[in-house]
Amino acid sequence: MSRRCRKSQIRGLIELSKYWNKLINDIEPYVAGEQPKPGQKVIKLNTNENPYPPSPKVKEALEKFDLADLRLYPDTNSTDVMKAAAMFDGVSGKNIFCGNGSDEVLAIAFQTFFEKKALTGLPVLMPDYSYSFYPVFSEFYDIRRKTIALKDDFRLNPDDYIGVPNCGIVFANPNAPTSRAIAVSDVERIVKANPDSVVIVDEAYVAFEKDYESAVSLIGKYGNVCVIRTLSKAFSLAGIRLGYAVASEELIEGLRRARDSFNSYPVDRLAQKVAEAALLDTGYYNETRAKIIATRERVIKELEGLGFTMPPSSANFVFAKPPVDCGKLYENLRTKGILVRYFNKPVLNEYLRITIGTDEEMDALISAIRQEV
Amino acid sequence: MSRRCRKSQIRGLIELSKYWNKLINDIEPYVAGEQPKPGQKVIKLNTNENPYPPSPKVKEALEKFDLADLRLYPDTNSTDVMKAAAMFDGVSGKNIFCGNGSDEVLAIAFQTFFEKKALTGLPVLMPDYSYSFYPVFSEFYDIRRKTIALKDDFRLNPDDYIGVPNCGIVFANPNAPTSRAIAVSDVERIVKANPDSVVIVDEAYVAFEKDYESAVSLIGKYGNVCVIRTLSKAFSLAGIRLGYAVASEELIEGLRRARDSFNSYPVDRLAQKVAEAALLDTGYYNETRAKIIATRERVIKELEGLGFTMPPSSANFVFAKPPVDCGKLYENLRTKGILVRYFNKPVLNEYLRITIGTDEEMDALISAIRQEV
Repeated sequence: MSRRCRKSQIRGLIELSKYWNKLINDIEPYVAGEQPKPGQKVIKLNTNENPYPPSPKVKEALEKFDLADLRLYPDTNSTDVMKAAAMFDGVSGKNIFCGNGSDEVLAIAFQTFFEKKALTGLPVLMPDYSYSFYPVFSEFYDIRRKTIALKDDFRLNPDDYIGVPNCGIVFANPNAPTSRAIAVSDVERIVKANPDSVVIVDEAYVAFEKDYESAVSLIGKYGNVCVIRTLSKAFSLAGIRLGYAVASEELIEGLRRARDSFNSYPVDRLAQKVAEAALLDTGYYNETRAKIIATRERVIKELEGLGFTMPPSSANFVFAKPPVDCGKLYENLRTKGILVRYFNKPVLNEYLRITIGTDEEMDALISAIRQEV
Repeated sequence: MSRRCRKSQIRGLIELSKYWNKLINDIEPYVAGEQPKPGQKVIKLNTNENPYPPSPKVKEALEKFDLADLRLYPDTNSTDVMKAAAMFDGVSGKNIFCGNGSDEVLAIAFQTFFEKKALTGLPVLMPDYSYSFYPVFSEFYDIRRKTIALKDDFRLNPDDYIGVPNCGIVFANPNAPTSRAIAVSDVERIVKANPDSVVIVDEAYVAFEKDYESAVSLIGKYGNVCVIRTLSKAFSLAGIRLGYAVASEELIEGLRRARDSFNSYPVDRLAQKVAEAALLDTGYYNETRAKIIATRERVIKELEGLGFTMPPSSANFVFAKPPVDCGKLYENLRTKGILVRYFNKPVLNEYLRITIGTDEEMDALISAIRQEV
């Protein structure tokens, strides 16, 4: 056996095992935001969930669902969700691929579009500060990566992605945890300048701009752009795990081939039903996001009044630099039962990522912060 | 770019693309059994689903579920399901890892326990006729494999897995599509003889033997056995996508590290609720499987009376060799609205894999077959 036999236990977790392969022994897995214990009362502003419940149409859809059907495998392509998403995004169902959350869709996209280290010297390009799953995926799937520095105030400069040899590009727009967006015309410049690479545009937070533009508008024109959407944020359905890709048929077919090599039925019957109902209720979607946008604009003013600085936010969170020690503020808020996200890494550790909750939750946050600054 | 630029379209499917990496261009994905179109009336005996609805406790659990909670991410470890599964299997919750169907759990186990080709010359051992996802996983995750021939009448001989250098072992028990089981004492011989490898025992069909033994009984004694269970078959929940691994804490921790490098929240909130309720209703589980076992025993006698031969079945299906041309019989049954599984590959193409449905469905099958033989 070439595998290591050392084994140790730190903080109760097994950290090395001869039974794990080299990759699993070496990798530093993604760490998701803290989830409160059942029954624990907290104001949860740390994982960018939506403070409002999902569309009332979800309840109606579930009431009509015949539970006896759960004995049967679900539709592998989630056809009804595909159709609803296609209508929502103004594309054809052939341009949609559904998965078990946008994390899974992103993971499958990495496995489909980006080449392994052993087969190419080219890296996938990604911003230095972005969704922390991207570097984990590139490690896990053995893909070379090159991180590109964001500009001052976390601005992504499209020119930095032009003329740089690569086997693919991935970024979030709006970006996380920075909250900043770039215009679709800038996304288009990147897509156009890299015709041999797939450009993944992760639009998890796109709905939180009043008159938002989506890179979905580029699909008809470019075969190499893959937009990733999620129902976790704007549709209040983080609990259901539904993400999807919008792309050319050629890219969608690649994603299906990867899925069929891994898990034929990624989205269960109940999740399909719920997702379809939510996607069709665009009125509720627009109401909810308008409320969150209004709350965000007010909260930004209040935080600025308290001495915070932050890049302009196009997301359902702000990335705010407090006038006091960041780690300490995070801990003090936590003690008061308010969870926000703190990344204990250089540069990022000067900021808190604060999800926009209800007005009442944000009032509680502001008054707690007022005692600390 | 090292990627190929050829592209062709056959049967409407894109088969090559410069935007897919080499693996996706090369791989032959798993093909799941045919699913009828919505509204299409068929007798569906082709994907080993349970003909009975899930436990009535599932309905109760969903009625109590507060849909507003869908706005929040699910519990990453599916703790309530873990606890219910632990009770069901008589182990600790620490020995359970839940995933989005046993296909996902198997895929994660391959990625965790078996070493990449580039890092070892050792293969994973698997039977020549077994679940057809195993070779797909080994291709997809770049793991060397060595297939070991089953004996006459599809018997797995444990001796064939002893003294053969390997980086892991995987088999289904009962095996699919052959329906045959080996005793847990034989599984133990394999596990004991390979102390440096993880042995994955896929027990999707284990419940369909009257007084069944499970390799779960080996967990306390051996750190290197990983038993995979599913709620798709005996619990009538193929539509919910819930599979789990039972293994030593060391193996479970490895699976978690892989999961957290790929998708932090594999099981949605509704699926967790449904799975927990079903696992706790052991009375219903035992009733359902007893009915299927009784139907199977009767069907075997009737098929034998019609000239079929088959290995002894411990599963909710039979692997039956008809006295007439197999492909033709499959097509004729299909025309009559009865779907069974036909594998168009050498040796397997002499058999039909027929799921055990309700008594009425099996009566319809038998009378349709009677017209053909």
